[in-house]
Amino acid sequence: MKGHIPKSQLIMGIHTLQHLLAHAPERLVHVFAEQSVGKGRKSELIDLCHKRKIPVSLLSFDALTHMVTSDSHQSFVAQVRPRECVALKDFLKNSEEKETGLVLMLDQIFDPQNFGALLRCAECFGVDAVVFSKNRGADLTPVVAKTSCGASEIVPLIPVSNLADAVLHFQEAGFEAVATTLEAPSENLYETKFGMKTLLILGSEGEGIQPLIQKRADRRVYLPMRGKIDSLNVAQACSVLLFAVGFAPTIRTTSL
Amino acid sequence: MKGHIPKSQLIMGIHTLQHLLAHAPERLVHVFAEQSVGKGRKSELIDLCHKRKIPVSLLSFDALTHMVTSDSHQSFVAQVRPRECVALKDFLKNSEEKETGLVLMLDQIFDPQNFGALLRCAECFGVDAVVFSKNRGADLTPVVAKTSCGASEIVPLIPVSNLADAVLHFQEAGFEAVATTLEAPSENLYETKFGMKTLLILGSEGEGIQPLIQKRADRRVYLPMRGKIDSLNVAQACSVLLFAVGFAPTIRTTSL
Repeated sequence: MKGHIPKSQLIMGIHTLQHLLAHAPERLVHVFAEQSVGKGRKSELIDLCHKRKIPVSLLSFDALTHMVTSDSHQSFVAQVRPRECVALKDFLKNSEEKETGLVLMLDQIFDPQNFGALLRCAECFGVDAVVFSKNRGADLTPVVAKTSCGASEIVPLIPVSNLADAVLHFQEAGFEAVATTLEAPSENLYETKFGMKTLLILGSEGEGIQPLIQKRADRRVYLPMRGKIDSLNVAQACSVLLFAVGFAPTIRTTSL
Repeated sequence: MKGHIPKSQLIMGIHTLQHLLAHAPERLVHVFAEQSVGKGRKSELIDLCHKRKIPVSLLSFDALTHMVTSDSHQSFVAQVRPRECVALKDFLKNSEEKETGLVLMLDQIFDPQNFGALLRCAECFGVDAVVFSKNRGADLTPVVAKTSCGASEIVPLIPVSNLADAVLHFQEAGFEAVATTLEAPSENLYETKFGMKTLLILGSEGEGIQPLIQKRADRRVYLPMRGKIDSLNVAQACSVLLFAVGFAPTIRTTSL
């Protein structure tokens, strides 16, 4: 049976499993652990699965590696229920009554490690959802789940066919679309004030954001770097951007 | 000869070498490249060394690995001139005439990857210097140089014997010492305004900041997390903190 589980329904890694057990145990269908899992944190995890009545099967290290096509599973793989992704239409309908909103849109993030790290940032800063392309970007694989520390299973996800069209729908729903770029002539992030509903758009380190999306955005901002070398990595930049958006209501409150 | 180069005078990795060639070529004494380095970016790097009159020796992959005790050298190792670290006394003397100052103090960062990532953040945000313990933390190794993308060779470094004493010296010189913690009752970073001279103190993910240093700090701040899972990694948190400190003068300017 386990040979037939699609990759999108498999997660791996100790932290990922820990976070799912703590915050979304209902997502877990079946846990696969390495036979030789010893005492300590690892056996505690198995005990916890038993307590939550989640079936556990013991397999060899290699069998786990085969399931997820990766040997960085840390002795734990799990089958999860298929994600219930959010439809864009439903999300926007729900957001109508809310005063604030913060959505992260990821464009052309092909590297699964970066995709995972960005989902983790998004979860830490409590974004309402992450929008990404169904076709042009990394898939939701066990590697993504692991790098995200399980955030991929917790943060609301909105996969769409066309990101540029999605930007228009967000704008119609009262969101300001803010594209992040690498340098001027965009607005300096230190001088930017964000509105109450923000769609923050981030591209990959290499490719950036597609021109059409950049063009459709209401504003373009950049984070000025003050050193000599490379810019921050994409997840560090994302953390700063999400923090800066969250700062906006504080500034507003202070100046009123 | 190369067997006698201390690790602290070796760097490795393509990006590290690129950045040093671009921003601090005078630091490079000798470059060691893999014999089979082919066309493209790698041979361009060697050409650039020749242009800058930096001697290049070709070695086997294994010989490079042996030099740096790591196989992630990406075919490039280099001997650098010993770092001229800054003496705390001299740094504080120089800062007397300046109106602003931003110094990052790292406490108990034992993981070389984290140490490197933090130095990269520090360089990107243009801190004036990084202070760290000579004894209680990661050493300046080739791994640190690589993870920092060469920032370890560019950002001014102040190694000290006793961090807690260094805090006092900074305070005497007009710096506000701000310790970062994980949660309340510290000040919420979103509501914090920083002064013009800040010593930002960051601890490791596991250990945090030593109690004496926390106690000596003028203020303690935390970055509130809004999600369910783990906090950000230490370099992501550091990026946000350095951004927030840099924000302070902007806020001040705006409200005047």
